[in-house]
Amino acid sequence: MGNPPIGGVSIKDVEEAAERIAGHILRTPVLEAAPGLFLKLEGMQHSGSFKARGGFNRILAEGELPEAGVIAASGGNHGLAVAYAARALGVRAEIFVPTVSSPVKVAGIRALGAEVTRTGAVYAEAYEASVLRAAGSGALEIHAYDHPEVVAGQGTIGLEVLEQIRGVDTVLVAVGGGGLVAGITAALDGRARVVAVEPETIPTLHRALLAGGPVPVQVGGVAADSLGADRIGEIAYGVTRAAGVLSVLVSEEAVVDARLELWRSFRTAVEHAGAVAFAALRSGAYVPAPGERVAVIVCGANTDPATLA
Amino acid sequence: MGNPPIGGVSIKDVEEAAERIAGHILRTPVLEAAPGLFLKLEGMQHSGSFKARGGFNRILAEGELPEAGVIAASGGNHGLAVAYAARALGVRAEIFVPTVSSPVKVAGIRALGAEVTRTGAVYAEAYEASVLRAAGSGALEIHAYDHPEVVAGQGTIGLEVLEQIRGVDTVLVAVGGGGLVAGITAALDGRARVVAVEPETIPTLHRALLAGGPVPVQVGGVAADSLGADRIGEIAYGVTRAAGVLSVLVSEEAVVDARLELWRSFRTAVEHAGAVAFAALRSGAYVPAPGERVAVIVCGANTDPATLA
Repeated sequence: MGNPPIGGVSIKDVEEAAERIAGHILRTPVLEAAPGLFLKLEGMQHSGSFKARGGFNRILAEGELPEAGVIAASGGNHGLAVAYAARALGVRAEIFVPTVSSPVKVAGIRALGAEVTRTGAVYAEAYEASVLRAAGSGALEIHAYDHPEVVAGQGTIGLEVLEQIRGVDTVLVAVGGGGLVAGITAALDGRARVVAVEPETIPTLHRALLAGGPVPVQVGGVAADSLGADRIGEIAYGVTRAAGVLSVLVSEEAVVDARLELWRSFRTAVEHAGAVAFAALRSGAYVPAPGERVAVIVCGANTDPATLA
Repeated sequence: MGNPPIGGVSIKDVEEAAERIAGHILRTPVLEAAPGLFLKLEGMQHSGSFKARGGFNRILAEGELPEAGVIAASGGNHGLAVAYAARALGVRAEIFVPTVSSPVKVAGIRALGAEVTRTGAVYAEAYEASVLRAAGSGALEIHAYDHPEVVAGQGTIGLEVLEQIRGVDTVLVAVGGGGLVAGITAALDGRARVVAVEPETIPTLHRALLAGGPVPVQVGGVAADSLGADRIGEIAYGVTRAAGVLSVLVSEEAVVDARLELWRSFRTAVEHAGAVAFAALRSGAYVPAPGERVAVIVCGANTDPATLA
């Protein structure tokens, strides 16, 4: 069960986060889609993705907030989540979004009352702009993945998985900046294996594990509006490397197919990033052993449903 | 808790159905959407609606099947369910659908390998044609709602609700021909109250309770492709009347609004009929007491997702 590396996140952090955000987030349901195959339906979460967990935890852990409120940069889901949490808690929010972001998400952020600034072609550029702005305004910066409280918040999904799925062996998780996979790895604390799944077009964790540390990657493909970080977070790298998390890649075609299958067979409408973990099973990138009990985190549903028709 | 009327369905029938269909259907998940408000996500069921439960139960209860297989008439969901169950069990299926049926559903029935005949403007006319056909072919007729095994199959949802929602007080259920509400009423057997919800445009149960027996009604509105029966079933009338089920009506606007809200807030894409029970809460047609624990059966999701965009 090993202690996390310095700068990492421990199971205790995740348990504290769970207490802090209880009542603010939904305990999302689990569907046993086939014997031993469990879908954790986190796309039903407030704001349409798991990001609400980290957003609430970061804000609630801070206590007293600056008058300027909170600020975040995001490919969309983190922005929606911070805007949602800020509105729920009566706090101002300013969100910097890169131009790659889905129009559905940007409209949603505005509808939640946040101030939106579109800038930068990719997440990293929007992030730099938000850091400059935060330095001027004094707003609390809520990083999309590389902050201990954000990671601990996302990890609360792992605690629910352990409670909801008796004897779970393996949890498949999509990776962007790595907040979700890091948090879940910390939460499971060795009680189940974690498989990190990335599109071949955005292999931030995969490359980092090969290189011995976070390295920049090209960002592209159908899931880029959600998994658009161009390198894995330091926390995610540290936590997943220490835990020996398995990293697998899936093709664009596998992601598209998995998303359509989730709709066709289970009437679960998700965004492409939300289907990445399921794609590892469908494509054979991860093959469970006979009798293995596998949880798939279906992590986001901020999609235009017309694209499923 | 009182015997059912002659021709009715008892809790024992439902319990037997649950044993019979276990392994063929999904145990659909429940989302606690707000404190004390539970959504039973039955749209995720195989074939996209609760109808798979009754379809499997009817076929499996029969044992030896005729060479001509099974035949059904249906606004769509029952047809999809019978086609799904027949394929799963290796049986031929012939489905008669009225022309009002949604193209999405009809295409789905064909994709499941069933033979489709489009005939009649409304369900009742398609049904008459299917009865004639069955008399000639010898196929097993699977009624969409007015057969004890079909009703008992649908009722298995009620058993799951009791297991999944501790201390549930009230279950809200949409009504078309009444198979679902009758089955759930039998399953609950007085352990929770049932509220039957119908669109104002198709008040089959409401009118029957006022008239003292099933009477024909005009069929119309957004949910007509799923709730298109033009009178309540005899079993449903008998069971719900004996149990003192409360009957409420909702407007077209309330149904449309409830469906959009299920998508906006919980990323649950459903058809209009699947939102009818939720509409009773949203519109105030049913107002729970403080602390009342309410389950809403979200019963079908065979919709064109483009209509949610």
